[in-house]
Amino acid sequence: MIDTFGRLLREDIGFGDITSQLAIPEDLSAQAKVIAKEACLIAGLAYLSENVTKLGLKVTVLIKDGENAEKGDIVALIEGNARKVLAMERVFLNILGRMSGIATTTRRILNKINKTNPNVRIAATRKTLLGPLDKMAVIVGGGDPHRWNLSDHILIKDSHIALVGIEEAVKRVKKKSFIRKIEVEVETVEDAFKVMNLGVDIILLDNFKPKEVSQVVKELGDRGLKGKIILEASGGINEENVKEYAECGVDVISMGLLTHSTKSIDFSIETQRKMIPQV
Amino acid sequence: MIDTFGRLLREDIGFGDITSQLAIPEDLSAQAKVIAKEACLIAGLAYLSENVTKLGLKVTVLIKDGENAEKGDIVALIEGNARKVLAMERVFLNILGRMSGIATTTRRILNKINKTNPNVRIAATRKTLLGPLDKMAVIVGGGDPHRWNLSDHILIKDSHIALVGIEEAVKRVKKKSFIRKIEVEVETVEDAFKVMNLGVDIILLDNFKPKEVSQVVKELGDRGLKGKIILEASGGINEENVKEYAECGVDVISMGLLTHSTKSIDFSIETQRKMIPQV
Amino acid sequence: MIDTFGRLLREDIGFGDITSQLAIPEDLSAQAKVIAKEACLIAGLAYLSENVTKLGLKVTVLIKDGENAEKGDIVALIEGNARKVLAMERVFLNILGRMSGIATTTRRILNKINKTNPNVRIAATRKTLLGPLDKMAVIVGGGDPHRWNLSDHILIKDSHIALVGIEEAVKRVKKKSFIRKIEVEVETVEDAFKVMNLGVDIILLDNFKPKEVSQVVKELGDRGLKGKIILEASGGINEENVKEYAECGVDVISMGLLTHSTKSIDFSIETQRKMIPQV
Amino acid sequence: MIDTFGRLLREDIGFGDITSQLAIPEDLSAQAKVIAKEACLIAGLAYLSENVTKLGLKVTVLIKDGENAEKGDIVALIEGNARKVLAMERVFLNILGRMSGIATTTRRILNKINKTNPNVRIAATRKTLLGPLDKMAVIVGGGDPHRWNLSDHILIKDSHIALVGIEEAVKRVKKKSFIRKIEVEVETVEDAFKVMNLGVDIILLDNFKPKEVSQVVKELGDRGLKGKIILEASGGINEENVKEYAECGVDVISMGLLTHSTKSIDFSIETQRKMIPQV
Amino acid sequence: MIDTFGRLLREDIGFGDITSQLAIPEDLSAQAKVIAKEACLIAGLAYLSENVTKLGLKVTVLIKDGENAEKGDIVALIEGNARKVLAMERVFLNILGRMSGIATTTRRILNKINKTNPNVRIAATRKTLLGPLDKMAVIVGGGDPHRWNLSDHILIKDSHIALVGIEEAVKRVKKKSFIRKIEVEVETVEDAFKVMNLGVDIILLDNFKPKEVSQVVKELGDRGLKGKIILEASGGINEENVKEYAECGVDVISMGLLTHSTKSIDFSIETQRKMIPQV
Amino acid sequence: MIDTFGRLLREDIGFGDITSQLAIPEDLSAQAKVIAKEACLIAGLAYLSENVTKLGLKVTVLIKDGENAEKGDIVALIEGNARKVLAMERVFLNILGRMSGIATTTRRILNKINKTNPNVRIAATRKTLLGPLDKMAVIVGGGDPHRWNLSDHILIKDSHIALVGIEEAVKRVKKKSFIRKIEVEVETVEDAFKVMNLGVDIILLDNFKPKEVSQVVKELGDRGLKGKIILEASGGINEENVKEYAECGVDVISMGLLTHSTKSIDFSIETQRKMIPQV
Repeated sequence: MIDTFGRLLREDIGFGDITSQLAIPEDLSAQAKVIAKEACLIAGLAYLSENVTKLGLKVTVLIKDGENAEKGDIVALIEGNARKVLAMERVFLNILGRMSGIATTTRRILNKINKTNPNVRIAATRKTLLGPLDKMAVIVGGGDPHRWNLSDHILIKDSHIALVGIEEAVKRVKKKSFIRKIEVEVETVEDAFKVMNLGVDIILLDNFKPKEVSQVVKELGDRGLKGKIILEASGGINEENVKEYAECGVDVISMGLLTHSTKSIDFSIETQRKMIPQV
Repeated sequence: MIDTFGRLLREDIGFGDITSQLAIPEDLSAQAKVIAKEACLIAGLAYLSENVTKLGLKVTVLIKDGENAEKGDIVALIEGNARKVLAMERVFLNILGRMSGIATTTRRILNKINKTNPNVRIAATRKTLLGPLDKMAVIVGGGDPHRWNLSDHILIKDSHIALVGIEEAVKRVKKKSFIRKIEVEVETVEDAFKVMNLGVDIILLDNFKPKEVSQVVKELGDRGLKGKIILEASGGINEENVKEYAECGVDVISMGLLTHSTKSIDFSIETQRKMIPQV
Repeated sequence: MIDTFGRLLREDIGFGDITSQLAIPEDLSAQAKVIAKEACLIAGLAYLSENVTKLGLKVTVLIKDGENAEKGDIVALIEGNARKVLAMERVFLNILGRMSGIATTTRRILNKINKTNPNVRIAATRKTLLGPLDKMAVIVGGGDPHRWNLSDHILIKDSHIALVGIEEAVKRVKKKSFIRKIEVEVETVEDAFKVMNLGVDIILLDNFKPKEVSQVVKELGDRGLKGKIILEASGGINEENVKEYAECGVDVISMGLLTHSTKSIDFSIETQRKMIPQV
Repeated sequence: MIDTFGRLLREDIGFGDITSQLAIPEDLSAQAKVIAKEACLIAGLAYLSENVTKLGLKVTVLIKDGENAEKGDIVALIEGNARKVLAMERVFLNILGRMSGIATTTRRILNKINKTNPNVRIAATRKTLLGPLDKMAVIVGGGDPHRWNLSDHILIKDSHIALVGIEEAVKRVKKKSFIRKIEVEVETVEDAFKVMNLGVDIILLDNFKPKEVSQVVKELGDRGLKGKIILEASGGINEENVKEYAECGVDVISMGLLTHSTKSIDFSIETQRKMIPQV
Repeated sequence: MIDTFGRLLREDIGFGDITSQLAIPEDLSAQAKVIAKEACLIAGLAYLSENVTKLGLKVTVLIKDGENAEKGDIVALIEGNARKVLAMERVFLNILGRMSGIATTTRRILNKINKTNPNVRIAATRKTLLGPLDKMAVIVGGGDPHRWNLSDHILIKDSHIALVGIEEAVKRVKKKSFIRKIEVEVETVEDAFKVMNLGVDIILLDNFKPKEVSQVVKELGDRGLKGKIILEASGGINEENVKEYAECGVDVISMGLLTHSTKSIDFSIETQRKMIPQV
Repeated sequence: MIDTFGRLLREDIGFGDITSQLAIPEDLSAQAKVIAKEACLIAGLAYLSENVTKLGLKVTVLIKDGENAEKGDIVALIEGNARKVLAMERVFLNILGRMSGIATTTRRILNKINKTNPNVRIAATRKTLLGPLDKMAVIVGGGDPHRWNLSDHILIKDSHIALVGIEEAVKRVKKKSFIRKIEVEVETVEDAFKVMNLGVDIILLDNFKPKEVSQVVKELGDRGLKGKIILEASGGINEENVKEYAECGVDVISMGLLTHSTKSIDFSIETQRKMIPQV
């Protein structure tokens, strides 16, 4: 139901792929090999092959979402009408490169902190560019998607607090549906301590230093709330310092960089004539 | 007419911003300061303020597209109904961070090569994530958007050549509209030489070493075609080696990294109550 | 962002309101009184007035969402171009009648059980006809919207259990995001007991008799899980027997009838010429 | 062409059916039995099976639109990928229950008045919730859909009359297309008499008592207009008093309750593993 | 509600009006005069000015829909931001030229037959290119729009008859809603005679010679059905022979050429700087 | 990706083809012959058959796009469910008639000037009604589509010049992408001469007399710019005088009449029962 591929394809084709319409005979069949130009964790091929199939092309996935590809690996084959193959090439690669980039980064970070703290989760934020596809890539990489959008989770942020105050904000959201958790963002250790007693489910420690995070983790234990309140750290956490945060015993580390600044993985497509009956 | 902001906002709001609906009184007014967290070239504020205004919010742009912001600068103010301000915050920042990131990178690269070769253009590719917004950001940064999509330029790529051969492909696209140029991608110096005589307007040198580019530039001059055929270099060009390519005398350098792997610029929004009549 | 009003209006107007185009002069101004034909709890006027205003009509809400209207009360005035007023009349009444019907039913049921158990929630299901508008009406009536759709809550239903078994299903969904709760539907007291130890957040007792619900409530207390696991009763609960369920000490009672079989409230619109300048 | 199913499904699935994605293996096949939980007249299965088939599921309709189902009857089988079956379950049941509810009510009312007056028609109004699907259900039940929307019929209502007067309104709509009939709503016997001479095709008697309707029927006969002008009664007619109206000899009885206050029929879906090759 | 203008504008602007973005300063104001290059009946300005106003431009209509313009007349002024004025110019002229062309042709034909037979209607067909806008233009010209689409009128055509036979087709459509008329297309005088007794409302005489039409008109009178059955002639009727058909005493003449082959009226836009504050 | 067929079909079907739903049994199969009622060049069948196939109908094209049909020729067969065949008939014919009309006119004009000047191109303008389908028809007829919309070509028109002057406009658009050509419209011979030195690629001579065009052609040759600047003539050129323009040695003649005033070709569909299994 996520029409990102279709939308991008319509946008890219516009009034027609004029080069292929001129250069390529209408009935020619082609086979395209999708090749990884660097080692990565594959993400997006399930989504892409479902969508490409709808165009009347045949897709064979050789390396599945969640599996590793080495540099030079053929990860999928696409066969069918040459003009159709050419028309969807760039959109296919843009999505595959983006999603595999996110998944690869997520997995690499998880590997880094795994031994330190096997239970900590790496979560995405809403700093996305392809929306739900970015979240799906984080999941393939082993990460946590966090909330999809503004209507599926209660998260009181600094802006809410600036407008109505922390106690008032928490009090008000208690009228929420019983299926929701309450999460509150705090910016100081003092506020973290204060919020512990307000009956929330998750505390988001924004821009805390590792030492401060540890302080909050300890206090939570001392109050016997360990396991009852989830602690999430966020803000200024990157691949260099993520391990320090993981060592603090926090439950979740959310990192904007997973989606807003990840390098796309480089894939290429090699196309050749195919003596198959056109699909 | 580019509805990216609206689309992302609808996707993000979904059935409603449930936190703000619970936490924030319906009639509260707010003022939000948009702050640059790092030095950058601003891009996207014209687009965003036009769209945010449609929501009934008042936007004051303090640093315009194409101007530099220093770390800590307030780049814009947004005023109006608090719930509306909160609901569009993230989408606003995602687009502003993305576009300013692309513009900043484009400008930085241009500055790097400017003295070497003031005439060379830095062009984007179709390796975009936000489509036309990415292209607009490249333009703000001083770069060239290259083609928007498959229907507004003739570009014979390796895939076309693999399917029908270079001469045949060029011959076929000659039936194009008189308003179009013909561009052909080549992968060897020999092919570059061959294509010079086929009557094309632009030759795209894909994955050429600087030395090879220089060879082609020289040959073009020797044949008296300088100024008649545009030379574009692409493939494997990055911030480290871009100067070497600029020195070769090529006309255009296109770089996928401008859009597929640029780090978003970090902006934040600080919100406070405003005693203004609600917009 | 919920375009139900716009969608229904476009559908209803089609190629134009041919009667009004013929019968009513183009520049005539009208005032329409929206009148409750029966006592009810008003719901939908905030949503409707926001949308009607966008058409260039002026709306004055006299009785707000969440307030009671008596039979004969004028709940709102709509003024402006007569053709526009006539064109949106039916869609306006359909939504207002539907939402007020749902809110009125929700409130009536809550009043019924309030003294018995002031803490029990009445929740909606996904048996909706106008989707999010139905849910919003339940909220106005004091009820709980439950999940909006399939992507914002984890609820293991009988179908999931039939396919993979209850333990397996729960085990699998534990990989969920940390922001989600887990809810499991059970059909027997035995299964309810079993599920208590699986680490879920909510147990949905489907088609339980009040006596069986009481049994589960008691067991939950005995195991010291009261307040840690939420109990929701559903299936076959109606206005006649809802009090019996409330007496059992269950936390939530969800009732499909709130949205799938509620009678719309009867409103009418009385229109007259208005000597106002046309909006 | 009526995309209600698709729209509701997209709305319900949102970013994905997160429970099934977690709980159900990707390749599992399932068979779902759709079961009537109460006796009813089936409506909607033709529409639903056409749409469900497009999802790649196999539908076998056992009891067709317009046929009666007894409590416990399996009315259809749906087979295919388990996740797909689970994702469309609720939307399927919502539409089937709604349409069968409307059809059942329509048929029941028709049966009630059949012996009294076999020629009278029971018609729907525009008080719909699912628009054209509601109308289709009325047709399956043996009723008359009346106009679909504002652009396919001329109906002068009380609002038009309040604004320009009855003679003026009728005079103006005479400029209508030759393919249209003219219908006028009147609220008093006197107005009904007056309108008979204005050259209209249908007179809608709004909120008339049966005695008053009879008076109009008689007068129409006396004036020799029987069969030339159609008489429609509407307003305040329900299952209790509909027979009285039918006895008056009116041609059409339109009832808002058919669509705005009908109870949905209760259907359930029972799902089990299927050892079929996945569709 | 008819979004043709918006759709065409979005299609024409695409990723932006690149010429104006480059050539025209962002804040320049312009005034555009819309000039008729030939005498015509104006149609479309009401529709266009409503839509252009939504873009933030000011429109002053000087010659209204249904009024005559002479060659050289300024029919409207458009003022506002120069880029916006330039961007919508072509779409504005395309719609205005199309609609005025249809209205002018319709009026000219009506003038031709007016003295012969002041009661005959000239009707459009479904041979349209801009759908409802074409129909609206016919109405402005004094013509009859006939049916808008397949869902608002019963018209048994040759194809239906070829498949099920004329009596069977008529018998089946008798189950139609009481608000609909029945129209049947016949291709021979014999069939016209036969259909007169089947209880239909309109007979469409397809490809009849004037003499044959007269025969049918006479027979209808002889049977006392004049005024009870409407006769419509269609097929092969053009500006040369339309008068002959009008003389036959037929009620309606429908002509595909009104919409499928009408020459657009030539309008031009003259633009100049305006010293007004930008809208 | 061009959804014109789908859009027109949805618009035409609306809530359903009520005649066929009543008159035609649900499971009847039909075969429709598409017949040319006049000699023409076929255009549109490739587009239409791709779209009709998606509806589940079988299309056999007998005369392809770009081939000539004689009066009476069967150009295509459509087979499948009778209701579906009937529902798409009119939209099919409207598009086929429009596109074939444009292609036929284009070809006829080309034939007229072919001997005079085999190199001159006949180009379309943006005076279209079906947008890209009109352009595709011009291409089938052998013409040049010119620009698709405002974002794929730089064309400085009289309006731009009126606002900023010709030199300023050209100077500003020089910042364009290297893939674009610059075209400038001029209205006098003097301006044409002036523009020759401004470094543009195409000069559009608007409303020039043939003699004036010849003057410009000669001057261009004298300045040694032949082959470097393309000359396009436009404005007031029709089938009568097009040959005179072709004789002037201009490169391109663009004619609005190709699309804004072309007569549609008359096609009809003959439908009969088919004893095939329903598709």
